[in-house]
Amino acid sequence: MKIVKGCPSTSMNDVQLNTTTLIKHAVRNFPDREILYRSSDNQVQCYTYKDAYTRMMKVANFLENKLGVKPGDKIGVLDWNTQRHFELYYAIPGIGSTLLQMNLRISTDDLSYVTNHSEAQYVFVDESLLSVAEAIAPSLKTVKGFIVMSDKPMSEIKTTLSPIYHYEEEIQKESDFYDWPIIDETTAYSACYTSGTTGRPKGVYYSHRNIYLHTMAAATYFGVNSHDCLLVIVPMFHAQSWGLVQVATMMGAKMIFPGRYAAEETAPLVDLMIEENVTIAGGSPAIFLPMLHYIRTLEKKPDLSKARFLSGASEPPVSMMRGFKELTGAEIIHAYGATETTPLVAGNYLISPTLQGKLTEEEKWDLKRKQGLPITGIDFKLCDPETGEEVARDGKTVGEICLRGPWITGSYYNSPGTESSFRDGYWRSGDAGTIDENGYVKIMDRIKDVIKSGGEWISSIDMENTLMGHPDVLEAVVVGIPHEKWQERPLALVVTKDNKEIPREELDGVLFERFAKWQLPDQILFVEEIAKTSVGKFNKKEIVKKYENLYNEDEVSSEI
Amino acid sequence: MKIVKGCPSTSMNDVQLNTTTLIKHAVRNFPDREILYRSSDNQVQCYTYKDAYTRMMKVANFLENKLGVKPGDKIGVLDWNTQRHFELYYAIPGIGSTLLQMNLRISTDDLSYVTNHSEAQYVFVDESLLSVAEAIAPSLKTVKGFIVMSDKPMSEIKTTLSPIYHYEEEIQKESDFYDWPIIDETTAYSACYTSGTTGRPKGVYYSHRNIYLHTMAAATYFGVNSHDCLLVIVPMFHAQSWGLVQVATMMGAKMIFPGRYAAEETAPLVDLMIEENVTIAGGSPAIFLPMLHYIRTLEKKPDLSKARFLSGASEPPVSMMRGFKELTGAEIIHAYGATETTPLVAGNYLISPTLQGKLTEEEKWDLKRKQGLPITGIDFKLCDPETGEEVARDGKTVGEICLRGPWITGSYYNSPGTESSFRDGYWRSGDAGTIDENGYVKIMDRIKDVIKSGGEWISSIDMENTLMGHPDVLEAVVVGIPHEKWQERPLALVVTKDNKEIPREELDGVLFERFAKWQLPDQILFVEEIAKTSVGKFNKKEIVKKYENLYNEDEVSSEI
Repeated sequence: MKIVKGCPSTSMNDVQLNTTTLIKHAVRNFPDREILYRSSDNQVQCYTYKDAYTRMMKVANFLENKLGVKPGDKIGVLDWNTQRHFELYYAIPGIGSTLLQMNLRISTDDLSYVTNHSEAQYVFVDESLLSVAEAIAPSLKTVKGFIVMSDKPMSEIKTTLSPIYHYEEEIQKESDFYDWPIIDETTAYSACYTSGTTGRPKGVYYSHRNIYLHTMAAATYFGVNSHDCLLVIVPMFHAQSWGLVQVATMMGAKMIFPGRYAAEETAPLVDLMIEENVTIAGGSPAIFLPMLHYIRTLEKKPDLSKARFLSGASEPPVSMMRGFKELTGAEIIHAYGATETTPLVAGNYLISPTLQGKLTEEEKWDLKRKQGLPITGIDFKLCDPETGEEVARDGKTVGEICLRGPWITGSYYNSPGTESSFRDGYWRSGDAGTIDENGYVKIMDRIKDVIKSGGEWISSIDMENTLMGHPDVLEAVVVGIPHEKWQERPLALVVTKDNKEIPREELDGVLFERFAKWQLPDQILFVEEIAKTSVGKFNKKEIVKKYENLYNEDEVSSEI
Repeated sequence: MKIVKGCPSTSMNDVQLNTTTLIKHAVRNFPDREILYRSSDNQVQCYTYKDAYTRMMKVANFLENKLGVKPGDKIGVLDWNTQRHFELYYAIPGIGSTLLQMNLRISTDDLSYVTNHSEAQYVFVDESLLSVAEAIAPSLKTVKGFIVMSDKPMSEIKTTLSPIYHYEEEIQKESDFYDWPIIDETTAYSACYTSGTTGRPKGVYYSHRNIYLHTMAAATYFGVNSHDCLLVIVPMFHAQSWGLVQVATMMGAKMIFPGRYAAEETAPLVDLMIEENVTIAGGSPAIFLPMLHYIRTLEKKPDLSKARFLSGASEPPVSMMRGFKELTGAEIIHAYGATETTPLVAGNYLISPTLQGKLTEEEKWDLKRKQGLPITGIDFKLCDPETGEEVARDGKTVGEICLRGPWITGSYYNSPGTESSFRDGYWRSGDAGTIDENGYVKIMDRIKDVIKSGGEWISSIDMENTLMGHPDVLEAVVVGIPHEKWQERPLALVVTKDNKEIPREELDGVLFERFAKWQLPDQILFVEEIAKTSVGKFNKKEIVKKYENLYNEDEVSSEI
């Protein structure tokens, strides 16, 4: 793509877009805005942007003076959603080094690979995760030391890691003034590795410019302001918690770091939401559904009518979105993105003004199942996955979603052989979807998960969500199983309440609302659980492998 | 300032921030969103983003094919707030040329200077402004032709301009497809010349990057979304209508171009606001005050409770802000900026959350008199005007506001001798102000207008606003007049209702609420009108000149 230069401007184009600007702005203008965090003993504590900033400057001094960290170095962080993790979000990139987001849910082998591939020099690790660090330590090739983060003194901490530094004890010794350098905007702010099921994790190195523009765009799109309050639910090692921490910083919003929590114990999160008037959060249906169940048990329903909760990872069931709206007033916003996209590229927040007044209540809820409208600055291209040619934006034609924009990755870090993920300056998402005349994006499936039956496509995601609409179905996954005659045929695995089987006709009744008879799964199996990846998505590769001979063995449905 | 480079990132840092992205986004996602405009015969007409975009592509083809305009060329626009002006906002910069904003209120001599200084190749001119173009035409050195914009056919238009093209007739002949090039983000999008009272106008050439980032920041700060409706009141040749047109484009908001209007006939603007549910507008107290007077006459008060009106140019009187809030629910937001700053750098919208609940009703209104909080990305430095040293941000120490940021100008275009307006990478605003611990900016005065009396400073702006608090005072200006003993002493000129004189004790009574006895004007003169500059500000230079010998002639107040 040729870039045209015209008359030079007089603007200060050399002002760099970097994250130090964001935190400085927050501290200058909202010094006393509160930041809450839950410590390891479950107490909710409070400090301010000013307090956090003072500690960031101490950390910067510690990194530079004690550890000798230099611009360009990579520094790993292995932590939950904590205030110290927040401090590192600005301290590490603020001195010109790059924060490696260490996913504590991937295998030891992969985590070790990621750390070595990034050539990390040091690793910050929460005390509760020392065992994870200890497990990878023997295979690390570039790490020169570890910094343990804990409320306990060093003397009470047991670990085999060496050399080991103690965060609190070290920063106590450092000056609370640090003169931040100006970081070139193309420098990597952080590195996040993909957690796909195929091959080794691949590195996405986000530039400061990338983060800065993503932050502005997300703040604009979701209308975030200084009166908002963010509950940091999405792991901070997942594409920097979807950028929401930076959004809150930019706007001077209140923040709450819940520390360690589990999807099964969401009650404390809901209690925090109610007590602190949380208005912004991100999460997946896997976290919002148990929250809703808990809210149903509350005698007095909370007023969360100012809340906008971003729901990603998988399509949020309409019943869940309606439940939140009706019981609490909270808006669940279907959002779309990936590690490669920082992540936000589309969201389904306010209904498009040109559709307003034209849809029935049911149509409005149905619309909210879509991924929504692209965020300004992101160029969505819908392509034939084979040829790369653009296909029609008519809401019907399915193509691969390809993306270009300031916060989309243009390559994988030091990963020869991954060039096929990019074409004509666009990143290929691997998602099959449609775009309609009003700009609404709808993801049908992963291209590799689309079920190709007799020359037609069946969306596994749509079928899963339809099955989950049955009141007794807890989870459902649909995969394409090799079939001699039809190429592939759908198989559904279903987890039900109390593990009881649901009659096939009953499930077919639900499916008939959206699917033709030929599209229905040949078999529906009832299982106790469904295999998932480290980020909580269905591990379809593993499921297909397990059942790959199912349809060719018994020739079920050959009569279709 | 040294820029530090760290580890390279994998982000698409080569994606250019330019305005073509903004309009493309709007058209793709909000094709049918309405744009209203008032034609020359006062009819309100309606088209859509898609319609406008089609015409922009035709204009781009016309510029390139018929006129031979090349990237780097400058193209002047002499027009009111019209839909054609909007089309040129994207067509001219979209092909890589630069839009010269021609201020139709400056002198013929200055306008001619600006056109020649920018080396404009062509000038687009509204039919109603042909006489302005004809007046400068003989002295233009680089202009090769004019394009008249009118609803009438060419055959009915009389002009001496030559060669002359007809906008509608020309674009009718062109293709409605244009393949926009990618414009380098540092290229000048538009040029706006200052209209200061000192010397020749100076050129500020805004880069695409500048405009793009300003647009995002303003949209974020004021919480603009696709459901908003902008009434374009600020002239589109004044720092691109304060950037609000681009903000509306980026968010897919509705827009209304009122065409030509005068401050004295604001009733039609208010009627439009009510009919079309306007939620965003920018203007000065000179336009909002007559609007409020008109609203007072309406039997049924309109509900404008979703409206945020940006008020700039001079401090909005509290009575005006309260009047709008109480009668209509509309929020008047004091905003701060200049031609050199695109313009928005600060705004007083939502009260800082740390102050919430801590101020009385009166204190809240008083707070709204301040210029507000800096917009993210803009670095405010408060300096001693003599030495450039930073002074305290304590809300009391007065210093010169100096600014650095992506949408601040770093120089004046081809203007040797203007280097003193910049220091250490910051633009010197010439405004004297304070910044408090919560980040709130308060402008006291222009540094040159501050009255220096016996070693102390008196703010002329505060005194003017206090005088205007008297119910019979329509306008008041306060200037410093040379004085042998005290260096300078204040003089007030007052315009009253029905030109009746107000007893001195009565005005002193008002002034005593904010000022000490020694600060009071030595003389208060009643006048029929106050001299103003082309942008409607008091022409203090001229006033001082007229009265420069007043205090040394008659030695009034030598007893102080």
